[in-house]
Amino acid sequence: MIIEDFKLRRTIRKYKNDQIPEKMLNELLEVAFRASTTGNMQLYSVIVTRDEENKKKLAPAHFNQPTVTTAPVVLTFCADFNRFIKWCELRKAQHGYDNFQSFYTATIDALLVAQQFCTAAELCGLGICYLGTTTYNAPMIIEALNLPKFVVPVTTVTVGYPAEIPAQVDRLPAEALIHDEQYKDYTSEDIDRIYAEKESLPESKKYITENNKETLAQVFTDVRYPKANNEHFSDIFLKIIREQGFQF
Amino acid sequence: MIIEDFKLRRTIRKYKNDQIPEKMLNELLEVAFRASTTGNMQLYSVIVTRDEENKKKLAPAHFNQPTVTTAPVVLTFCADFNRFIKWCELRKAQHGYDNFQSFYTATIDALLVAQQFCTAAELCGLGICYLGTTTYNAPMIIEALNLPKFVVPVTTVTVGYPAEIPAQVDRLPAEALIHDEQYKDYTSEDIDRIYAEKESLPESKKYITENNKETLAQVFTDVRYPKANNEHFSDIFLKIIREQGFQF
Repeated sequence: MIIEDFKLRRTIRKYKNDQIPEKMLNELLEVAFRASTTGNMQLYSVIVTRDEENKKKLAPAHFNQPTVTTAPVVLTFCADFNRFIKWCELRKAQHGYDNFQSFYTATIDALLVAQQFCTAAELCGLGICYLGTTTYNAPMIIEALNLPKFVVPVTTVTVGYPAEIPAQVDRLPAEALIHDEQYKDYTSEDIDRIYAEKESLPESKKYITENNKETLAQVFTDVRYPKANNEHFSDIFLKIIREQGFQF
Repeated sequence: MIIEDFKLRRTIRKYKNDQIPEKMLNELLEVAFRASTTGNMQLYSVIVTRDEENKKKLAPAHFNQPTVTTAPVVLTFCADFNRFIKWCELRKAQHGYDNFQSFYTATIDALLVAQQFCTAAELCGLGICYLGTTTYNAPMIIEALNLPKFVVPVTTVTVGYPAEIPAQVDRLPAEALIHDEQYKDYTSEDIDRIYAEKESLPESKKYITENNKETLAQVFTDVRYPKANNEHFSDIFLKIIREQGFQF
């Protein structure tokens, strides 16, 4: 059963030198564009970066992660109200899409398309990697890709033929993520049970030692996603969303 | 080829009375949980609503769309930092996740899982419908589902066996959504060309006549997604995101 294969998926960060044929890429994107979209407005755009120089321009925005410059294709998925607003303006329609709800709606549209693209790509033997750095350094991406008003980059996906099949990473037990009828908040015992496997992994113990921490959670709060960074990138992202035309 | 089938997908709003076996639903969710997630933090939760009374409680938040009460299963996908923060607190780790960037990161996680669930469900013969109303009436959903601090509903999906296969809706031509290397902004001629097919559809002409408008765009701006609604729901959504603990 095909969905069984989905359980085996893993993020691929290293790619073969092989190019992705343009026809194949366009086919995958076309498949992705059939994903659900709010009111069939299709509030997204995808920027395709293949050119080496342009990848180098994008790389600093992604903290020079090698996956950006070594992937044959880098896709930047954007929340895009520009096209729709331009249509409204040309059709004597007074839009009211310069607000947070509209930005968030376009965010949803862009992410559903991104995930549908990734699934289609993986089914065709390609490997993908999402870059969360997109929202940290959105202003740099906006400049590099020449994004106009009402367009905000939401996520980036690198794509290519896998050069390695890394070990699958852990996931929390499904019971931790599913709530039956109502949200059942977690007791301390629940948290201990849910995180037990993750905490017992050799990699987790390695992270703790390497970073000189007491617990795995401290690796996240003090090293990987610290408060100062989250607040700094919040300020930058909020500022640029507003500058791109969404007022709140 | 399986991805060819994706091109034929359509939203399903009418379902047979058949229940979805619990084992199947959990299997589909487990498949979805293999979707990419930021730093493997899995910042989401899914609330499963099957109970008729609970569906009735959720229905007003979705403007009583019949799909909510007639679907065998309603899934509310939430951005969830509660579980992760509780873990941090129990592991002597001082979190800094009460900000916009963290909320947005959890939003991304939740939407990738939602879309992966939908794809898996469709591959198993189920039909799905996304409800954009989730962010409009988030406070009602938070109350109905008892969502704690740091949990915000992001989207809702109704699921069931299709009782009808509606005609496929239109999509903009792919060239309108893909930008090669850099964003190429749309000229008036581009917009005319991109929207020509949509505007020429009999349904579009029907919407214009029914709503007594001049253009299809006016149906969107004046009837379906008017400025006053967008601003009203922006205020509500921003207020509740902050009340749930994300400060900005």
